[in-house]
Amino acid sequence: MTVKNIIWHLHNVTKDERAKQKQQRPCILWFTGLSGSGKSTISGAVEQKLFELGYHTYLLDGDNVRHGLNKDLAFSDGDRVENIRRVGELSKLMIDAGLLVMTAFISPFKADREMVRNLVQQHEFIEIYMDTPLKVCEQRDPKGLYKKARNGEIKNFTGISSDYESPELPEIVISTVELSIEECADKIINYLKENRIIN
Amino acid sequence: MTVKNIIWHLHNVTKDERAKQKQQRPCILWFTGLSGSGKSTISGAVEQKLFELGYHTYLLDGDNVRHGLNKDLAFSDGDRVENIRRVGELSKLMIDAGLLVMTAFISPFKADREMVRNLVQQHEFIEIYMDTPLKVCEQRDPKGLYKKARNGEIKNFTGISSDYESPELPEIVISTVELSIEECADKIINYLKENRIIN
Repeated sequence: MTVKNIIWHLHNVTKDERAKQKQQRPCILWFTGLSGSGKSTISGAVEQKLFELGYHTYLLDGDNVRHGLNKDLAFSDGDRVENIRRVGELSKLMIDAGLLVMTAFISPFKADREMVRNLVQQHEFIEIYMDTPLKVCEQRDPKGLYKKARNGEIKNFTGISSDYESPELPEIVISTVELSIEECADKIINYLKENRIIN
Repeated sequence: MTVKNIIWHLHNVTKDERAKQKQQRPCILWFTGLSGSGKSTISGAVEQKLFELGYHTYLLDGDNVRHGLNKDLAFSDGDRVENIRRVGELSKLMIDAGLLVMTAFISPFKADREMVRNLVQQHEFIEIYMDTPLKVCEQRDPKGLYKKARNGEIKNFTGISSDYESPELPEIVISTVELSIEECADKIINYLKENRIIN
């Protein structure tokens, strides 16, 4: 704006610099699975452990996304696709900000998860399949949604009246039936260490 | 899930904890002003300085938002409102993640800026008015947009064929005509220090 300004070198802070500052390799930990499969519980446990280790995280779920950014969306097929698209784009921006992003959405369709995978670099998308049998999820039924779905009060409910397409080659498979919460979380933390996402 | 799990206390990481970890008080620095008023330049300079001081930032602008999260939006009145709404919600999530968020959008209408202000806590929204006269912006015309707007090639161009509503009580007013880039950035950094957003 003045000659003086030309001397001062304007340098945009880069994704790599933000990542180095936080001493981590930003990525999305994409939790997918049926309602009641443990997505919120295990992602919450992983976030707690990462935070205690000094890493910089953020967890996106229905609670903080559906009531804000995506409050204009309902549950039609088109709106569900748009919901996941926005979560993907949001995660991409948070990766750019240097964060380890966790997402906890049923995200039942392969095509939608692949869409998000393709938004970011190959090593930045870590699909975590919560491999909990429908029977177990329905027994847990933490929000009473399966009961409503069986009664016909909720339509297009994943696992009951709408498909869940299991991931074919997820980076991590978690069995909440066989492992405790802490063991599930540790399995994910170990994956992150082995892949040098954290130290 | 098993009795063992009940012992392990699951504690969600809070906004305050993420903020403390980063040793800053998260907020939005909302830059508003005409095209060519210096929003990108000054917000970029502020981000650079904050990063060098060790703070955790992210800058949202047309480049990273319009091509991704908001790529389904055009420039109709409704889409412009939705654009700003989503940037606001996105900023709110990034505040929750503990970041100092900067946004560089013309955001010409008071109602839209107030909408964002009301999304977050009172001290979290810092409106920065880039008070550069239209004449100067038009002389700079960094992207050749004013020329196109004068030729009628661009319709509804802020300052030419669409209103810009100046903020009445912005937290910070920046005059890029009177100050150098570095002085503008320092004025904002000093505000952040005085208001204990950074140390």
